[in-house]
Amino acid sequence: MRKPDVLVVGLGQIGGSLAAALTRRRLARVSGATRREETARRARRMGIVAEAATDFRGVPPADVIVLATPVRTLLRQIPEVAPLASPGALLTDVGSTKKDILEAFRRCAPRAAVIGGHPMAGNEKAGLDGCDPDLFEGRPWVLIPGPGARRGARRLLESLVTGVGARPLWMEDPSRHDLAVARVSHVPYLLAYALMEQPPEDLRVAGNSLRDATRVAMSDPAMVLDFLLTNGGPVGRAADELTARIRELARLVSRGDEKRLRRRLEKALDRRRGL
Amino acid sequence: MRKPDVLVVGLGQIGGSLAAALTRRRLARVSGATRREETARRARRMGIVAEAATDFRGVPPADVIVLATPVRTLLRQIPEVAPLASPGALLTDVGSTKKDILEAFRRCAPRAAVIGGHPMAGNEKAGLDGCDPDLFEGRPWVLIPGPGARRGARRLLESLVTGVGARPLWMEDPSRHDLAVARVSHVPYLLAYALMEQPPEDLRVAGNSLRDATRVAMSDPAMVLDFLLTNGGPVGRAADELTARIRELARLVSRGDEKRLRRRLEKALDRRRGL
Repeated sequence: MRKPDVLVVGLGQIGGSLAAALTRRRLARVSGATRREETARRARRMGIVAEAATDFRGVPPADVIVLATPVRTLLRQIPEVAPLASPGALLTDVGSTKKDILEAFRRCAPRAAVIGGHPMAGNEKAGLDGCDPDLFEGRPWVLIPGPGARRGARRLLESLVTGVGARPLWMEDPSRHDLAVARVSHVPYLLAYALMEQPPEDLRVAGNSLRDATRVAMSDPAMVLDFLLTNGGPVGRAADELTARIRELARLVSRGDEKRLRRRLEKALDRRRGL
Repeated sequence: MRKPDVLVVGLGQIGGSLAAALTRRRLARVSGATRREETARRARRMGIVAEAATDFRGVPPADVIVLATPVRTLLRQIPEVAPLASPGALLTDVGSTKKDILEAFRRCAPRAAVIGGHPMAGNEKAGLDGCDPDLFEGRPWVLIPGPGARRGARRLLESLVTGVGARPLWMEDPSRHDLAVARVSHVPYLLAYALMEQPPEDLRVAGNSLRDATRVAMSDPAMVLDFLLTNGGPVGRAADELTARIRELARLVSRGDEKRLRRRLEKALDRRRGL
């Protein structure tokens, strides 16, 4: 099989790491498109792309186009990029929320197959400073079929996702994805911020539990604002559910209900071990 | 200066690690007292104590007695141990809550000086399996003067705490300590349990943020129940404060109030970097 031509639009931590992983593992011939000339130069120098331009119209047609810009940029880019994809090509993205993105793709009726994607990977470094060809190793990568996502397209994307070390996880409903992600990824950010807003004199006695629980507060605020503000409904619902659960646990503590509390702690321990 | 004789009562993760740190760094001659003969044998075999008995009445008088049992055991032991300490000796503990413990010490009017202690250290391993002579390295160790805690006693304990690598942090008010610890240590446990109680099918898409935020859910439930149930009031208050803050942040997200949200994210980032 011929190596596919992959165009990665956006060379931040996720786009850059994907380009690096595909190039280093010889899975594809990768070109990149990025807003700033400096980033394009740096990506070329790092050898993670064969070529990089500051305009996606300037790169040759690709078999796979991966949109790897922040969600709000992505929503603006979809109507510009989608018409450039030829029939038989595959359009995908790595945005953290999926409902609006898949709707945006649907609206512009692309000739290419569309599959929404979301790798559950990343760390607190921003841009190419956070580029790591092993970033996806062992991580789930959610895939949601969009318009025209037939078998061949699904297989191709699954092979690339598996190739970079991730575990493909097919989901059907983008809203279901957005709620799941609000629960397991976005709300932990709110927890971290809320913990850091506690009185500074108390933070002096912080140990590892606080350090672990607030690590995500070191992420780039621009990135966090992007995924929170494009997932407002699910984040609100997940935060309500979670605060209700925290208060319930605190009530068991205040009441001294050791039996019920122990049952819940043991169940959580069991699930955490299985994570 | 003569090396002090230190008796550690309770050879779990904290007591065992303290015995190991004091012995390995030649800061003290350490003996141990522990409920189970098997633990006593193991501690002797590991070379972390010079001798170990299953009854603290069986070990020779010490200059420093460190109570390192769970808080609820500690509260029972104080009236038994305190009378054994000679005048001029130092009685301290490593319990995670301080108000009830210092009151218990006060009630039995010991002839020895009393200083409450709380090292902010530990990991999810239980008992001597979690024994680590470097456990306290760089960690805060809260010290609260109790009855008879004069300068000499303070200096001695401070030198031992510094000797094992910790940063002594003097506080005056045990209730203030208990609230601070509820905020920065105990409530993060409730958050972790609440996060793990979310729908299992959503946990499949978990990335590093959830993993970090729930690491403490792998702790020994018996240990967690002990500190939560002896700190019910402060834990309830801290949980109320925190859930209010989480809902406030979620409201800013739902409303799309980017400006206010950005300010809070940037402030939290700044504080987290300083942690």
